[in-house]
Amino acid sequence: MRKINGGVTTALGFKAAGINVGIRKGKTKKDVALVYSETPCVAAGTFTTNLVKAAPVKWCQSILKNDLPKHGIVFNSGIANACMGAQGEADNYEFAKAVADEFKLEPENFFVGSTGIIGQPLPMDVIKAGIPTVVAALDSTREAAAEAAEAIMTTDTYAKEAAADFSIEDIEIHVGGMSKGSGMIHPNMATMLSVVTTDINISQELLQEATSKVVSETFNMISVDRDTSTNDTFIVLANGLAGNEKIVKKNKDYDNFETALKLVCKTLAKKMAADGEGATKLVECRVKNAKTKEDAIKLAKSVITSNLVKAAIFGSDANWGRILCALGYSGAEFDPEKVDISLRVETPEEEETLLLVENGIATDYSEEEATYILSQKEVKIRINVKAGYENATAWGCDLTYDYVKINGDYRS
Amino acid sequence: MRKINGGVTTALGFKAAGINVGIRKGKTKKDVALVYSETPCVAAGTFTTNLVKAAPVKWCQSILKNDLPKHGIVFNSGIANACMGAQGEADNYEFAKAVADEFKLEPENFFVGSTGIIGQPLPMDVIKAGIPTVVAALDSTREAAAEAAEAIMTTDTYAKEAAADFSIEDIEIHVGGMSKGSGMIHPNMATMLSVVTTDINISQELLQEATSKVVSETFNMISVDRDTSTNDTFIVLANGLAGNEKIVKKNKDYDNFETALKLVCKTLAKKMAADGEGATKLVECRVKNAKTKEDAIKLAKSVITSNLVKAAIFGSDANWGRILCALGYSGAEFDPEKVDISLRVETPEEEETLLLVENGIATDYSEEEATYILSQKEVKIRINVKAGYENATAWGCDLTYDYVKINGDYRS
Repeated sequence: MRKINGGVTTALGFKAAGINVGIRKGKTKKDVALVYSETPCVAAGTFTTNLVKAAPVKWCQSILKNDLPKHGIVFNSGIANACMGAQGEADNYEFAKAVADEFKLEPENFFVGSTGIIGQPLPMDVIKAGIPTVVAALDSTREAAAEAAEAIMTTDTYAKEAAADFSIEDIEIHVGGMSKGSGMIHPNMATMLSVVTTDINISQELLQEATSKVVSETFNMISVDRDTSTNDTFIVLANGLAGNEKIVKKNKDYDNFETALKLVCKTLAKKMAADGEGATKLVECRVKNAKTKEDAIKLAKSVITSNLVKAAIFGSDANWGRILCALGYSGAEFDPEKVDISLRVETPEEEETLLLVENGIATDYSEEEATYILSQKEVKIRINVKAGYENATAWGCDLTYDYVKINGDYRS
Repeated sequence: MRKINGGVTTALGFKAAGINVGIRKGKTKKDVALVYSETPCVAAGTFTTNLVKAAPVKWCQSILKNDLPKHGIVFNSGIANACMGAQGEADNYEFAKAVADEFKLEPENFFVGSTGIIGQPLPMDVIKAGIPTVVAALDSTREAAAEAAEAIMTTDTYAKEAAADFSIEDIEIHVGGMSKGSGMIHPNMATMLSVVTTDINISQELLQEATSKVVSETFNMISVDRDTSTNDTFIVLANGLAGNEKIVKKNKDYDNFETALKLVCKTLAKKMAADGEGATKLVECRVKNAKTKEDAIKLAKSVITSNLVKAAIFGSDANWGRILCALGYSGAEFDPEKVDISLRVETPEEEETLLLVENGIATDYSEEEATYILSQKEVKIRINVKAGYENATAWGCDLTYDYVKINGDYRS
């Protein structure tokens, strides 16, 4: 199992492209991405739990249920195609059809992901005119994957890609993906927009099972602003080109695949949290020894979503009272007088744990030392609630002036 | 039923004081407040649901259960006396005792409320030395009430007071109160710190019942930052001096008292929301026709707590997509394609409703008009989900640069 440099074209047989078709008038930012496999794929997906679902989310959920082979996913950024009623659904269908027509395939062979402003129509003429150029640009190079990752960005400040490989006997299996995040990020069942491609040969059922499990431990454990989007979509495409014997039961190979998928998704998820709108720091909160798994998740998420904790971390202020307060209102069961809270630095150069609170009461820690740890790019909070044996880790970011600036005039 | 100019000394027999005893070194801001009735009171209260409870919260909960008459409440600002273990409880007892000793009463006759930094000890020498001065300053004037309201402020930018009166036959009943808010405001069962005094003659049971009901519709419907504090305390003291026949059942007089109490609490709650840390605007969200009362509450609260909605309102941006998105992840049941969203202006000079979304889709509204409404000091959002017959109103504030600034270096 290795983390490698790669993206959606790392797995055999997958091509990608990202170009500007002109969705955002007068802007040159890439705005359409396509990920394509000539070899048919099995697919798995998870989607937003928001009752308000964008047209592309409804489309993906619907085609995931049919038995047609899947050949890829097309994305646009700039417009979310959400809250557009029947017109949104018709536009989404046209979008999938425009891509499918190029390959003489059916719209139902292609997933769609949209991100951007809610409540505006997709400029279908512009999109349809641009699709042949997108298809012509498809390539299996590292650069093509990077361009696709760039095309799905909105307020992201950098593209998010990750890849891993491992072996089944002497066959190399590749897993690679991309995602976009930044705002309206509090995934529940899925992240904003992400696709992972793999050349493993696996049954659809097991692919979905691995996907759902991995999402619950990665994308669903990050939050930028507690706002669960209308467009969250995560799709995994497996085309089987690696040539391993098809995985149809949960053996060692399945476990290895799940681990590789988790490695890729966790890397993407952490990149999304670190690149949260306006963020200057990645915040990781690990909770140990909660009574139940649900409690561990509630506790870790409560800390990374607290505006007061996030603002204190922005200011490098060791305000552990806010951390304890956030644990207290999380809804989890524990005894506040048993809680330990530490800050941790982990870099290639140093490794240190600073205990701030022991059994619910402040230790005689050095404020200077705490401020030093909190001024790192990755702030690691470690919590031991001593109520049981379950653990969870969540990732978020600090709350900054720039978050307010970005969201005060996003549409202008 | 009239709203009147007043505070904690409006009801007969209540005195108040607010002075600087020196809790915050080198600062002259008033930091101790006392509200006192020589006539014994029945009392009711609601408190934070945070598992992490400050020592004064545990004290108030404990003495509320005994049958001893109550004579008042003492507050300090600057230090929350939370997460201090046994020392915190001992200090809190000393605080109550120092006040009680001045009146030759028991500590159990006095409630205590603390607000400020978590995890630091109360400077008991300074506090005990200051108590005789506080007691000497007690007065029943309007000014004394205002000074008490000032003394409980932390990051508040103005003191919060409210009062109302009504009649039982020819007897005038007074209800007046004060509160502080600003940060860590997402009350659940109670607000940060608030006390209401009244001269009504009422049984303890009915006082508690009215208090709990009113809190659920006022203080529990506001949020500044979704952080439920460790110190939330709301106490109602009734000394019976108005001389009405004691209210022991839910008659018209009880209803009138409940309405007056709600008027006072709602006024205080709205002042707290409007003065949220860094806030420039009060946001009111009224949800109509939800399936259940719980749904109505979830929907209204989801809108006013969404960071994205709050930031858009700061920027006077009519980003209704974020409002619909926040409704969608609230957990309430409704059909997104039936939702109407309006903005409303209501001033002495004008009254106007602008429909932004009808049945889930944007109307052809004027962005200019929307921006004008959103640039008012009070932004009123009206939502009709057409799923049933239940309504709820919640109050919050916008998310601004100053919220981040205040909370990035609160302790410095």
